[in-house]
Amino acid sequence: MTIKFNNVYVENVSTVAGPFVIEGPLKDNFDKKFTDFYDGEKTFEKCEMKELKESIKILLDKTKYNEEDISFGISADLMNQLTISNFVYSNLNIPFLGVYNACASVCEEILIAASILENEKNKKAICTTSSHNMTSERQFRNPVEYGAPKPKTTTFTVTGAASLMLTNAKTDIKVTSATIGKVIDMGVDNVFDMGAVMSPSAAYTLNEHLKQTKTKVSDYDLILTGDLGVYGKDIFKEICEKEYNIKLDKNYDDTATMIYDYKENIYAGGSGPACMPLVVYSSIIPKMKQRIIKKILLIATGALMSPTTCNQKFSIPSVSHAVCLEVI
Amino acid sequence: MTIKFNNVYVENVSTVAGPFVIEGPLKDNFDKKFTDFYDGEKTFEKCEMKELKESIKILLDKTKYNEEDISFGISADLMNQLTISNFVYSNLNIPFLGVYNACASVCEEILIAASILENEKNKKAICTTSSHNMTSERQFRNPVEYGAPKPKTTTFTVTGAASLMLTNAKTDIKVTSATIGKVIDMGVDNVFDMGAVMSPSAAYTLNEHLKQTKTKVSDYDLILTGDLGVYGKDIFKEICEKEYNIKLDKNYDDTATMIYDYKENIYAGGSGPACMPLVVYSSIIPKMKQRIIKKILLIATGALMSPTTCNQKFSIPSVSHAVCLEVI
Repeated sequence: MTIKFNNVYVENVSTVAGPFVIEGPLKDNFDKKFTDFYDGEKTFEKCEMKELKESIKILLDKTKYNEEDISFGISADLMNQLTISNFVYSNLNIPFLGVYNACASVCEEILIAASILENEKNKKAICTTSSHNMTSERQFRNPVEYGAPKPKTTTFTVTGAASLMLTNAKTDIKVTSATIGKVIDMGVDNVFDMGAVMSPSAAYTLNEHLKQTKTKVSDYDLILTGDLGVYGKDIFKEICEKEYNIKLDKNYDDTATMIYDYKENIYAGGSGPACMPLVVYSSIIPKMKQRIIKKILLIATGALMSPTTCNQKFSIPSVSHAVCLEVI
Repeated sequence: MTIKFNNVYVENVSTVAGPFVIEGPLKDNFDKKFTDFYDGEKTFEKCEMKELKESIKILLDKTKYNEEDISFGISADLMNQLTISNFVYSNLNIPFLGVYNACASVCEEILIAASILENEKNKKAICTTSSHNMTSERQFRNPVEYGAPKPKTTTFTVTGAASLMLTNAKTDIKVTSATIGKVIDMGVDNVFDMGAVMSPSAAYTLNEHLKQTKTKVSDYDLILTGDLGVYGKDIFKEICEKEYNIKLDKNYDDTATMIYDYKENIYAGGSGPACMPLVVYSSIIPKMKQRIIKKILLIATGALMSPTTCNQKFSIPSVSHAVCLEVI
């Protein structure tokens, strides 16, 4: 389903980046950097909470709004029960909605916030996201087999947090449309190859969005998926071409492949709900403000992987949602 | 934040109830009954998936719509990563949004679905919810201390699933408004007393909703919280009176106390995201259709409890969302 908006704009963004991300190609673009996985906190979870809290604080500082000026916040993270978001919002005077679609959450947040704002006047909402390499590793991949190397298709969860403020007040960047994706399960059960898991749902959502909005690939200055990784990106392109006759060109990229410098333990690139917004908010939104990039399509891809069902020999389903932003 | 709707109606509902619930006072009202915690499946999770799937199938059968007629579905359950919802929707041809606010999810779903539908024409959406006593016990309370009795404030997670179809086409029951709650953490860390955890956020949301909609308690035929339980209900009433000067009367009840016959292992009543919708969809919506009850306020209360943070000595935050339904 594709939703159109005519009353929702991007007010501002903020980014907080952690280890490895701050050594990557976007290192000069973040609002704040964390140099280690604890940043002075006693647990990884507390560190992730601190990152998310900081990103919201920076966003409020930049826009000069108080918590009371924000009508509601939508937040997502990878932790069971959205623990990070819950605790951060328990210290904020902002009404809260928690959503979970794994790494597709960033687009899910924007499309829900925009739907609620669409009928309002003079309202503002924030969409916030975090992930942390160590909290994810502990939750999803612990215990690891002793001495077993990871395959090259593995992604390395991004540590960081990113926030976006949407508003009814006209700005240079408008949220114009969004597409809700379907859950697709092609039977892949390899927990080290999320790119293969997510590519079919990303291709489905791209095709659906183009069809519903009557646009074509060349209408966009930039189409970004996130986070398929080096190998998933190729699978995605192949599915788009073979299944939907969509040829992706130089205006397509995947945020998983844009966030790190290549290093041995980074494997196929970044992942986690903070990966796409860290790339987009730090490096694409500024280019939109400068009118260098004018129309982008974000396709956030989520692997709905659960340790419980993996142990019960289920495969891994995936969902992807799309959001279109335009300079006006 | 309170949202008003003028274009969203209740098309129909469905309920599937499991053990203990089917022996309770509402036993004659459910569309389908499961008599044990497996219902022929190999795992508890598969049984919960079956329940959710059944409730969606029954809803589609009742309304005579196909999956393709539904613009999108919003689903929630208690499992990490919303596993139950993800797998059920992977077999449905319906676009999917996953949300998580624990037992507050049912109202979160309705308010998001209504916000998206508000601007549409001739569209339909489903809001679906499930919980299962054994999948919850395994995830949240396992391992248990050997031989330790549970305190009387414990609630017993409801096994069942419930679905609601919303539509733009006018029906007898209208979704008129909704209030997004705030995360409130009063420092309670007793995992066996969720009523005490959730009462403050329920009271906050009730007060906010009455204020924003300029209504008073007596304007509603029925105000329902879910699920505070026997003891939480009293705490809630006390906070409402002392903190907000709201006196709750005979038109107030809590769904946790309406779903089971009193038995030793039921303790303070029901809980789980399916508890409130099982009560409301099986027993209140039919009375609205008969125009016996005309205006209800649902306040779904969620304890954002996480085993990870409980182990790290955090307290338990809570959030509650409200939805108002009216016979027109």
